[in-house]
Amino acid sequence: MNEDLILLAHGGGGSLSKKLIGEVIIPEFHNQILEKLDDGACLTVPELEIVFTTDSYVVDPLFFPGGDIGKLAACGTINDLAMEGAQPKYMSLGLILEEGLLISDLRKVLCSMSKVLKETGVKIVTGDTKVVERGRGSGIYINTSGLGVRKQGVNAAVSNAKLGDAVILTGSIGEHGMAVMGQREGLNFKSSIESDVAPLCDLIRILLETVPEVHCLRDPTRGGVSAALNDIASSSGTGIEIQQKRVPLKDNVIGACNLLGLDPMQVANEGKAIVVCAESSSESAINCLRNNELGKDACIIGRVVSGHAGTVLVETGIGGIRILDIPSGESLPRIC
Amino acid sequence: MNEDLILLAHGGGGSLSKKLIGEVIIPEFHNQILEKLDDGACLTVPELEIVFTTDSYVVDPLFFPGGDIGKLAACGTINDLAMEGAQPKYMSLGLILEEGLLISDLRKVLCSMSKVLKETGVKIVTGDTKVVERGRGSGIYINTSGLGVRKQGVNAAVSNAKLGDAVILTGSIGEHGMAVMGQREGLNFKSSIESDVAPLCDLIRILLETVPEVHCLRDPTRGGVSAALNDIASSSGTGIEIQQKRVPLKDNVIGACNLLGLDPMQVANEGKAIVVCAESSSESAINCLRNNELGKDACIIGRVVSGHAGTVLVETGIGGIRILDIPSGESLPRIC
Repeated sequence: MNEDLILLAHGGGGSLSKKLIGEVIIPEFHNQILEKLDDGACLTVPELEIVFTTDSYVVDPLFFPGGDIGKLAACGTINDLAMEGAQPKYMSLGLILEEGLLISDLRKVLCSMSKVLKETGVKIVTGDTKVVERGRGSGIYINTSGLGVRKQGVNAAVSNAKLGDAVILTGSIGEHGMAVMGQREGLNFKSSIESDVAPLCDLIRILLETVPEVHCLRDPTRGGVSAALNDIASSSGTGIEIQQKRVPLKDNVIGACNLLGLDPMQVANEGKAIVVCAESSSESAINCLRNNELGKDACIIGRVVSGHAGTVLVETGIGGIRILDIPSGESLPRIC
Repeated sequence: MNEDLILLAHGGGGSLSKKLIGEVIIPEFHNQILEKLDDGACLTVPELEIVFTTDSYVVDPLFFPGGDIGKLAACGTINDLAMEGAQPKYMSLGLILEEGLLISDLRKVLCSMSKVLKETGVKIVTGDTKVVERGRGSGIYINTSGLGVRKQGVNAAVSNAKLGDAVILTGSIGEHGMAVMGQREGLNFKSSIESDVAPLCDLIRILLETVPEVHCLRDPTRGGVSAALNDIASSSGTGIEIQQKRVPLKDNVIGACNLLGLDPMQVANEGKAIVVCAESSSESAINCLRNNELGKDACIIGRVVSGHAGTVLVETGIGGIRILDIPSGESLPRIC
């Protein structure tokens, strides 16, 4: 395209819309189903359960160390399907673009998405593009809805934790939130923090194929590990006890959180999972996860217990015990 | 909720997010799949083709004569599935709310959606809510992705028009676009124009059950009848000829379009369909459509012809012939 900027006319459904879709969007996501350019995509998925999920991405800024809104929008929805025990297959792409956006920035974002999709074999099969006036958006908002398939009988719901289960974290926490925060606020952390944004579908598929008694899966995104563990405890009607010293944390994240007065347990991750499994399966789960680059720092951080149902307790480094709360509001707005 | 306004904290994934989702959003869309509140919804749809579609809605203003963004977001996605020959079954709901939105306005919008969903039997089974700062949105943006099922062998794609086919319009045009435009610009049209926004799934289901040779279905939304007919002509590699005098148009729409210098053929509709069917089926198609309130003004407006492949010609009221162009850009921004 000759034009550098997104115009309102790119959203009008006319020839400029066609040009944007045909020259900028479709070429990134080449596949036969999408190229029919019908209003919907026809899919065939025989004899499996279908899992359907949606997420909108409004991260600010669009580009941050370790990723951008495109990589995030692909990984986030892929990970939601993976946490359901499903293999992600198809995705929709809903773009809300702000008038004046650089088309080169749009291209970068779409290219990041398509890289993740190629790695994971997921296909964008339907989409929609709208343009809003300057000052009515923030460059790019993306909605991706995902469809995945699951073998019958797999249940990794947050309500499925059992007494005595091991609580496993697949790696160090807080990196996505602090990377976005640092970029947005122009903070110079001592050493640069990169977002952990990554697609977890292969890690989780291998885990489910290898380890018999995986009970819950959850990705600790908004609200961090704290919100995810509280979801599991309250949905399963059990208590959870965590040892703080076992939670993997990088020094640069500890430093940045101290500086800003944030609890890293409440900071968003985009490439980590919490796995709750039977105690008897926990060793094989750890071994399996550590065999994958995305799970190499996996460790057991706690247990599912019978007391204090619905509550998560943390044994702090200095021997005390505190309740792990969920934040009431937004300490880190627009992190995903 | 005590609060009247959406706060950034409602988007944080913490207890205020839970309150918004639990008290304002979920109660509108009560169903067992959604209430699991997992990140994805598990669906079973045996032995049918699955159709998947997505649309974002950014209409400005949120409320307009005849509807609001909620009714539009439900009907628009339902209609996209209907135009694929599919019965809509499930929907996702992605909300991007602007800080400072009145929660009472959010409730009104959700209530409009749920009314359409109840009428049509479609279920919202998964969702996501984000909040952006004041001046980064426009009250409410909605993405709805839809899943529908279709019997094997149904093909109503825009590429499927055949020589000699009748081109049918299910009713009068231009009402949605002019209703939104009038409301936004504060224009006082002589008589108030109401949006035609409506779910077409039942109308189309009965049509497909009754009439054997329906070849294409398309809803003339952005870009109007003009964009839809051009899509059919270019995808099918045929010509189309339309008689202007047969196109149903209400006086108030003609007046408003004249006032603003707009061609009603290019104005968006949200409750109309273009049906292309075999000439031999056209009478039964018209009878079938007219039996339904939403198709009572259906009529044949033209034919698929062998000449001028990819081009739509209009016989104007005064005996001339013009090419029906698609607009290059955005005469009516943010109409849907």
